[in-house]
Amino acid sequence: MTDDKKYRFLFIQPFELPKGGKHVDRYHSAELTKEQRLRMEYLNIRHLLDDVEWDFHGGPTAPYGDWAVETREEFAYVAAARLPIVREACASGKYNAIILLGGGEPGFMESREIGRQFKIPVTSCAFSQMHIASMLGNKFSIIDFTEVHNMFYYDLVVRHRFTERCGSIRNINFYHARPGFEDDNTIDLERDKALRGERSEAVERAVIEAVAAIEEDGAEVITLGCSDVFWLQSFLEKRLRQMGWEVPVLEGYSSAIVLAKMFVNLGVDASGLMFPSDRPKQWRRKKVF
Amino acid sequence: MTDDKKYRFLFIQPFELPKGGKHVDRYHSAELTKEQRLRMEYLNIRHLLDDVEWDFHGGPTAPYGDWAVETREEFAYVAAARLPIVREACASGKYNAIILLGGGEPGFMESREIGRQFKIPVTSCAFSQMHIASMLGNKFSIIDFTEVHNMFYYDLVVRHRFTERCGSIRNINFYHARPGFEDDNTIDLERDKALRGERSEAVERAVIEAVAAIEEDGAEVITLGCSDVFWLQSFLEKRLRQMGWEVPVLEGYSSAIVLAKMFVNLGVDASGLMFPSDRPKQWRRKKVF
Amino acid sequence: MTDDKKYRFLFIQPFELPKGGKHVDRYHSAELTKEQRLRMEYLNIRHLLDDVEWDFHGGPTAPYGDWAVETREEFAYVAAARLPIVREACASGKYNAIILLGGGEPGFMESREIGRQFKIPVTSCAFSQMHIASMLGNKFSIIDFTEVHNMFYYDLVVRHRFTERCGSIRNINFYHARPGFEDDNTIDLERDKALRGERSEAVERAVIEAVAAIEEDGAEVITLGCSDVFWLQSFLEKRLRQMGWEVPVLEGYSSAIVLAKMFVNLGVDASGLMFPSDRPKQWRRKKVF
Amino acid sequence: MTDDKKYRFLFIQPFELPKGGKHVDRYHSAELTKEQRLRMEYLNIRHLLDDVEWDFHGGPTAPYGDWAVETREEFAYVAAARLPIVREACASGKYNAIILLGGGEPGFMESREIGRQFKIPVTSCAFSQMHIASMLGNKFSIIDFTEVHNMFYYDLVVRHRFTERCGSIRNINFYHARPGFEDDNTIDLERDKALRGERSEAVERAVIEAVAAIEEDGAEVITLGCSDVFWLQSFLEKRLRQMGWEVPVLEGYSSAIVLAKMFVNLGVDASGLMFPSDRPKQWRRKKVF
Amino acid sequence: MTDDKKYRFLFIQPFELPKGGKHVDRYHSAELTKEQRLRMEYLNIRHLLDDVEWDFHGGPTAPYGDWAVETREEFAYVAAARLPIVREACASGKYNAIILLGGGEPGFMESREIGRQFKIPVTSCAFSQMHIASMLGNKFSIIDFTEVHNMFYYDLVVRHRFTERCGSIRNINFYHARPGFEDDNTIDLERDKALRGERSEAVERAVIEAVAAIEEDGAEVITLGCSDVFWLQSFLEKRLRQMGWEVPVLEGYSSAIVLAKMFVNLGVDASGLMFPSDRPKQWRRKKVF
Amino acid sequence: MTDDKKYRFLFIQPFELPKGGKHVDRYHSAELTKEQRLRMEYLNIRHLLDDVEWDFHGGPTAPYGDWAVETREEFAYVAAARLPIVREACASGKYNAIILLGGGEPGFMESREIGRQFKIPVTSCAFSQMHIASMLGNKFSIIDFTEVHNMFYYDLVVRHRFTERCGSIRNINFYHARPGFEDDNTIDLERDKALRGERSEAVERAVIEAVAAIEEDGAEVITLGCSDVFWLQSFLEKRLRQMGWEVPVLEGYSSAIVLAKMFVNLGVDASGLMFPSDRPKQWRRKKVF
Repeated sequence: MTDDKKYRFLFIQPFELPKGGKHVDRYHSAELTKEQRLRMEYLNIRHLLDDVEWDFHGGPTAPYGDWAVETREEFAYVAAARLPIVREACASGKYNAIILLGGGEPGFMESREIGRQFKIPVTSCAFSQMHIASMLGNKFSIIDFTEVHNMFYYDLVVRHRFTERCGSIRNINFYHARPGFEDDNTIDLERDKALRGERSEAVERAVIEAVAAIEEDGAEVITLGCSDVFWLQSFLEKRLRQMGWEVPVLEGYSSAIVLAKMFVNLGVDASGLMFPSDRPKQWRRKKVF
Repeated sequence: MTDDKKYRFLFIQPFELPKGGKHVDRYHSAELTKEQRLRMEYLNIRHLLDDVEWDFHGGPTAPYGDWAVETREEFAYVAAARLPIVREACASGKYNAIILLGGGEPGFMESREIGRQFKIPVTSCAFSQMHIASMLGNKFSIIDFTEVHNMFYYDLVVRHRFTERCGSIRNINFYHARPGFEDDNTIDLERDKALRGERSEAVERAVIEAVAAIEEDGAEVITLGCSDVFWLQSFLEKRLRQMGWEVPVLEGYSSAIVLAKMFVNLGVDASGLMFPSDRPKQWRRKKVF
Repeated sequence: MTDDKKYRFLFIQPFELPKGGKHVDRYHSAELTKEQRLRMEYLNIRHLLDDVEWDFHGGPTAPYGDWAVETREEFAYVAAARLPIVREACASGKYNAIILLGGGEPGFMESREIGRQFKIPVTSCAFSQMHIASMLGNKFSIIDFTEVHNMFYYDLVVRHRFTERCGSIRNINFYHARPGFEDDNTIDLERDKALRGERSEAVERAVIEAVAAIEEDGAEVITLGCSDVFWLQSFLEKRLRQMGWEVPVLEGYSSAIVLAKMFVNLGVDASGLMFPSDRPKQWRRKKVF
Repeated sequence: MTDDKKYRFLFIQPFELPKGGKHVDRYHSAELTKEQRLRMEYLNIRHLLDDVEWDFHGGPTAPYGDWAVETREEFAYVAAARLPIVREACASGKYNAIILLGGGEPGFMESREIGRQFKIPVTSCAFSQMHIASMLGNKFSIIDFTEVHNMFYYDLVVRHRFTERCGSIRNINFYHARPGFEDDNTIDLERDKALRGERSEAVERAVIEAVAAIEEDGAEVITLGCSDVFWLQSFLEKRLRQMGWEVPVLEGYSSAIVLAKMFVNLGVDASGLMFPSDRPKQWRRKKVF
Repeated sequence: MTDDKKYRFLFIQPFELPKGGKHVDRYHSAELTKEQRLRMEYLNIRHLLDDVEWDFHGGPTAPYGDWAVETREEFAYVAAARLPIVREACASGKYNAIILLGGGEPGFMESREIGRQFKIPVTSCAFSQMHIASMLGNKFSIIDFTEVHNMFYYDLVVRHRFTERCGSIRNINFYHARPGFEDDNTIDLERDKALRGERSEAVERAVIEAVAAIEEDGAEVITLGCSDVFWLQSFLEKRLRQMGWEVPVLEGYSSAIVLAKMFVNLGVDASGLMFPSDRPKQWRRKKVF
Repeated sequence: MTDDKKYRFLFIQPFELPKGGKHVDRYHSAELTKEQRLRMEYLNIRHLLDDVEWDFHGGPTAPYGDWAVETREEFAYVAAARLPIVREACASGKYNAIILLGGGEPGFMESREIGRQFKIPVTSCAFSQMHIASMLGNKFSIIDFTEVHNMFYYDLVVRHRFTERCGSIRNINFYHARPGFEDDNTIDLERDKALRGERSEAVERAVIEAVAAIEEDGAEVITLGCSDVFWLQSFLEKRLRQMGWEVPVLEGYSSAIVLAKMFVNLGVDASGLMFPSDRPKQWRRKKVF
């Protein structure tokens, strides 16, 4: 990686599944180019990387098995497994921002703490979408899938202090393939159908839930939860526009990229008071909420 | 203005004072270059404009008199007077973002409404600082001056829904020159002293208030209120760092610029539901908070 | 105006439309008596003015065109244009309270600041309704029309700190006549139908939305948004009562009048800390939320 | 009581102490005129009653003993004992509003429920002050005395939903005379000293706490807790004004009177949804917060 | 009562109705054993009392008439009437916790104040359910009946600071028998039908409302309002489980018992700052929210 | 472990340090009896375990090094490392509750998710203290040490939704021994001094901060953050009582034990909606906050 571009980013996936695994989607395995793995095939982010030198790290091999992360337990495993990658990247001096991929942002707070020590900002997909959404409208709603991920994401909304700005999390109820449930109609199949121009039930449900969020929950912006529904962004925004709803639809990759650029531009990463080092020079007698 | 840069911004001041006026500071009059008027002499923003084609508009001549805006009444006058400039700029097709200068952001919400009709984002100094600050720390405090401006700003915190994230507004109690109060030790004199490398009481007070905000009010980030204290940013951040406080200090110009870039990058301006047109295609039966 | 009555009020409209304008309703033009212009033809307020000496000011001529204010931009123009009238009225010594007409209360905060300097309370229609509603029930909902006005009003709820007490804003979706949209079925026609004893779709929709607000949004009191739906008050309250809903329905004129009287009785206008003068005797180092 | 005045009010004390009791202050016993008992000797309310026909009821004899109510237990006893008086007054047809005296407003919610059945508004001292204070400033603080009353009052702030608007309750730490504690320097002695023009430690402490509330807690309005410190209103407001603090100081009697008038003027008492009858015509499947 | 068990509890009903009264249900009269009166016939609490020495007090005879408490007024009467029983029980030295029966917990705060003086914890049915529910899920909803009780309960949610955790109060709209309304289909009849294994409309409605609370209001736990619907607990939980909803359903008796044990185990009752004595050793200058 | 006791608990430490490590305190290594390791030498919990069959698991060996966990990064490692122990314990069928030791409760939410699948409640030290504290007083404050742990704990307050009930986190500013900082005066030395009856600076600072929390931050209950300050409980409570402050001081072990018992008694663990399984029978279209 050379130094002649302003931005030098490392993208890190939350986990990677071994090639040929039973439940692996091609975007979770290591067989594609870095552009493909960044899902440029369907995410509108290529132009955002024109002025960026970037590397792609597939993340740790999922330590719990060969399927996509879904439960809190699985999230905790990949969070811990991703941190050494973050630390090494920060220490390498090669990057001026780290972008954590994955909708549930496992290890995000810890990565910001690590980044702070190197003055390197770290952005992630939930954090970025929520902050940007709250600039664009009074309230936002999240379109997501799988009940267990919804409730994991629920805690991210609480953690980032957006309970008053988040109208709802709306579940379109697809699943990841998973041992014991192989026959499920998975979200990946829906994505592929949509990309081929076929009717996708996932798109239909997303439209229904987005409109319900707008009409019932006060949503003025739509965001997307799990990274495996980020592909819905262009389909959903288009459909809503056709219906006359002038509603921004965000997805996590572009949001995390533009936020990382913003941090780099401004020369900030995080407050040393929010993420203190183990022996900070100054300490506060009290913290308030 | 050519089209070969990615960003085409117009900066608009809230008001301009006629040259030679009794209470006019050089940055409020039209005698300087646009770089000077953007306060590049002391704000660390030059590098942020490298990839920006930009124009500078001095804003409307203050309709109420030849002194800087301070009261709510005066803010209302300049807010209304600035809107035709915003509308004309949007309609010109020359810009892909408008940046409103001035700490109190008069006419900001109205300008976003106008911008929405042209799909042009509008950013401003209070909004931008508050949103960025809430990404960097749990709470932020605002350093500002003049009691009346503090309370005007108070309403901006409420408007942008940051009452839970704002620890306090801290007043360093200087004033703008103003009829009947000409002898006041004004904030402009303090700025000039500091820029000349002399001791400035404004800096000293800002340090005291920032530390109090950190130690007592939970502030983890410091922002600046009126644009006439934005010059404090570098002085204050340096002093805090010397004391061991690792606290980001934001100011409005750089914050508004990087946020405008982020909006342009992402291709968003605002939700059409938050800023509907006069006859939107879709409407909602209910809005909730 | 003589001094022998306890209350000496000036009513100020937000704007006046020139007689004969294409989009002017008779209540927005200057052709009626002051009693008519105060809409005593249908608002139940005559008895509230028995002990009041009062004048009526039509407000500034709408500076943007010959139609009723609707957008934020238009509101900003009339806000600024109304302030000199408020200032002159306060300075005249003739009044002990100012009542700002118009649902969206353009210039209200600024007018309170002006009033404060003369120790004269200023009341307005949104502020008054919200405060009174919160005394009568746990939550209130607002019946309003036009999407753009709804969202303008949304900000008033935020500004006056009632987001937790406001169940919803409910839109009955009529419009003001407006250039380019002359054939719209306007709210004024609905009012006239209802006053003639004919069926009005606006009344029907208001009943539907009020019941929805009660049953779904927790509303225990109904308030009305734009002053052009204040006429709904008696119709709506009666219909709800007939259905068995014991729900107070407020409108802005009577609410603003009784609140103004209360302020005069108590000898208060506003805190000098909320609305400081430009050089207050005392100032506070910090403000908190 | 004749019908020729607009307002027909009954004032009801929370309790009355038998004449000659060991701990009785003259305002808690029945030996004075109704004007004296309404504390017109020192409260600035005479002019508020010019257009009011009014009666005064001393309230129930304190059922727990011959000292002033202080504990929650004692408050519960007088609350229950006051309700039959309220019911009888409402049923008599003589009054168009009931005003409950006493700072802690025992039985207020229940009395509003009773009043609702007769369409008679009931106001009280804490409720009225809090609502009016929130119209005058962003935040208010309460000056009160005795620790146990402070915490009783704390619950009133929660009940009336003012936790975000109440900066603090400030204790000046005097006591009521009480068995076993007869020698205490009581608040009544302080009142008498102040009324005689002597220095009163209670006034001094109130000034200190009010200034602390202003400077530290964000108070922009001061209210008074127990009715036995309402006399502080004029002393405190004057002292603050002399210091340059333009801060309204409210007390409960005048606040409850002007609010009662406002309710009568507007023809409202309370929402039937907040205070339903035992078999309301309509009911709601759900209530939300 | 002997001392050889760890827990020595007194249960106190809010009121007792005289035998043979027109509107009395057998659980409100004194004709049953203490086990029956504690509703062990249908509540799953027997095992909770294995290690408890316990007495049962029927509470005060309803002072207002021979029907169950429903209005705020009636609640105030029984609250006051129950306090002497609480005080006597605490003073007797026989108990190490007091459990107040009745869903609306009349006199609870006052009883905690009394208990504090003896270092004896007091628990009650609404308080206990709300606290436990907030440990089990993000939000809870309350199933209750009668409109007037719903709104009384609404205030308990506010008082105990659970407005953000309570999704809704859902009304299944049955009534207590009551003079003038004897023919009502009362909740007691529903209970008896259900206990006999017959179809109960109350159960059906409770299922409908619980599912609505889950699907619409965010409820993740169900609690029960009035003690006369506590019998629904087992029926409702079973039905929800059969439908696939893994939702805890709480009722007040078991919740209050386990919380009382927890307090005894931990050796705590309440903070002396929340419930100060009439002359506490220490006092605070300020209280904040 | 036999089945003849009602409660069968497993205590699991967050991490264990290898014997003889440079920075290991005896309570973090495996050289003591299980009673000692549960810190019965100084925590008042022995009586709480009389009716409990219990095992003690030292937790995973700290994967990052031989010092106590402090940073977010270190917490993430031990969180992940503890989960297999939790899962195995649940699957073993030996326990009816799991108690996670350690103040920062790494892996708590994930462990509750695991426990839910086995219907086994999991309690932890921060969660338990916060919930109990909010039953005892209006607000609580946390005494903790080390800046970095304070901010980690801050997030736990947010996660468990106690920002409105938590007055402050107060830092007494000691440290754990740690590579590069071996000479620090550590908290363990303070504990040992106090247990030997010597003056401990940690106790003195804790008293100062607790009183400040009471007097300034509204704390009515004190809780303790990191488990390495739980020993302060008895010292602090005694000192406060001597000063006249009747304030409960909680610590995590006893709180987590009594809460675990309460869950077992009531037969609940957590809502299946808050912690859904990977393929729940029912799912919700929307989640709200």
